[in-house]
Amino acid sequence: MAVYTKVNDEDLSVLIKLYDIGSLLAYKGIAEGVENTNYLLQTTSGRFILTLYEKRVAFEDLPFFLQLIEHLSKNGIPCPIPVHSLNGSILQDISGRKAAIFSFLDGFSISNPKIDHCRQVGQALAELHLAANNFKLSRRNSLGQGTWRSFFNKFRARSDLISEGLSTLIDLELNYLDIEWPLQLPQGIIHADLFPDNVFFQNDRLSGLIDFYFACNDMLAYDLAICINAWCFRSDFSFDPHKSSALLDAYNDIRPMSENEKNAFPILARGAALRFLLTRAYDWLNRPSNALVSPHNPLDYLHRLKFHHSVHSFADYGYHE
Amino acid sequence: MAVYTKVNDEDLSVLIKLYDIGSLLAYKGIAEGVENTNYLLQTTSGRFILTLYEKRVAFEDLPFFLQLIEHLSKNGIPCPIPVHSLNGSILQDISGRKAAIFSFLDGFSISNPKIDHCRQVGQALAELHLAANNFKLSRRNSLGQGTWRSFFNKFRARSDLISEGLSTLIDLELNYLDIEWPLQLPQGIIHADLFPDNVFFQNDRLSGLIDFYFACNDMLAYDLAICINAWCFRSDFSFDPHKSSALLDAYNDIRPMSENEKNAFPILARGAALRFLLTRAYDWLNRPSNALVSPHNPLDYLHRLKFHHSVHSFADYGYHE
Repeated sequence: MAVYTKVNDEDLSVLIKLYDIGSLLAYKGIAEGVENTNYLLQTTSGRFILTLYEKRVAFEDLPFFLQLIEHLSKNGIPCPIPVHSLNGSILQDISGRKAAIFSFLDGFSISNPKIDHCRQVGQALAELHLAANNFKLSRRNSLGQGTWRSFFNKFRARSDLISEGLSTLIDLELNYLDIEWPLQLPQGIIHADLFPDNVFFQNDRLSGLIDFYFACNDMLAYDLAICINAWCFRSDFSFDPHKSSALLDAYNDIRPMSENEKNAFPILARGAALRFLLTRAYDWLNRPSNALVSPHNPLDYLHRLKFHHSVHSFADYGYHE
Repeated sequence: MAVYTKVNDEDLSVLIKLYDIGSLLAYKGIAEGVENTNYLLQTTSGRFILTLYEKRVAFEDLPFFLQLIEHLSKNGIPCPIPVHSLNGSILQDISGRKAAIFSFLDGFSISNPKIDHCRQVGQALAELHLAANNFKLSRRNSLGQGTWRSFFNKFRARSDLISEGLSTLIDLELNYLDIEWPLQLPQGIIHADLFPDNVFFQNDRLSGLIDFYFACNDMLAYDLAICINAWCFRSDFSFDPHKSSALLDAYNDIRPMSENEKNAFPILARGAALRFLLTRAYDWLNRPSNALVSPHNPLDYLHRLKFHHSVHSFADYGYHE
């Protein structure tokens, strides 16, 4: 949530001349996206977002991300549209970074989503999964289930600093998921990070999906499990079956889940909770002492994991057959 | 240059209802201003800036700043216009902070100002000084000459870490200025921080002055000395007499300097260089080890100070009688 790379007016003017987007009226560095630097450009043609890719995004993944975003926007998903330069390219160089310009999406993220917001997110996620169905490129999930144990080993020795007994709990969960993690479910492109921060609404209508920089190939139902964790718990960490029901029903209206996906869902939800527990625990232990913005509390995801331990079957998530 | 306070959509909606500025389409935290948090608001009526005042700005100074900005905007200075709420107030509460909404200024700051930019800045500074002439409130310069020695004492012991011999040089300069600092020159409201970052241009025409949160009462010619330091040195720290000449000539066309001001100018320029050398040295020594953006190098201002030591009279700044 910061401007990591400063872009000056001269470099920006050179960049903008490569496009047919009018001349620059104003530009501001904006706090959006945790991985990249973003500028809002106001030109005589309208508003655009300039994204500079920082080192946390692998250079070799950029064609996948940019072509995916373009593919989705062309297939009806409300997401930023990459703007082509006059010579047809999307990816440019500026201020020592690779960069791309996107259309600006109106709307803003909702801090306290209601049931109807969850319903719209379920619908949008299913539409995204279908729209990406014929996308040609692929990308391994660099934070997929197979990576969790080695990721945990980076901070295992310090994990009980977060909560007494956390390392044992994570060990047991990793062992369980190694055995139970489903392998035969329908795969496809998943967003993998569709949190409320990454969904814009306008007048309570979903107006945009952003931040596709965790997108990858994995099980579609795992993406849905990530969303249930992100959207369907109250601020006291209790599960909200009404939100979950709305999200799952709307998803299934567009892409009906198979029986295998439903049966495996409680395991996927445990995995989805563990994946964010792990990365948030790591960020928490490695936070700068003087950080301006505190990282997310990893225990939010420990509460979610414990809820999923209490679940008996898919029906407990409120889905109506 | 960061978003220190996060504003959520619900708090922002409540705030916007206090105004006649339409309904919210989008908002983004922007990296502008070092003291405050700023959001760009896009509403059905247009673009606005929401400024949240962080703790570095004293609450009791806010009426001075806000009324000054409004006074200047009403008197022809291109600066943000504070927007009044429906009940007439400018200052509001949001997310635990005092806040105000301003009109959005098109344009952007120039990283490498040319002679003509300097000329326009000289003109704008003189116009600002005249426009503020009948402003009723006043504010002591909290970084004025009388404060420099005690400020230096906060880091004197560590100052040679920046440059060998720096503490002796600053001691001698403080002693010199204690004796020579002029006391009888014309006073008024000064911007006190009119760096290139705080001046917007559009199509090479000056379109806005921002960031009045160092404004205070002090000698008008001292403000001019701050500008000469900020605008009229090359990136190799050498003095550019053409830029200085353009800035001073344009200033004098609008507000002719007195003989006393001209005679004292080299001393004011030394003081202006020392003031930024001191605050930059302090920020440099206290920078976080993992800061995303490095602070300004204080030695930029040591070079400027040494140039002013070499000056014999006002004529050396390139002013044409």
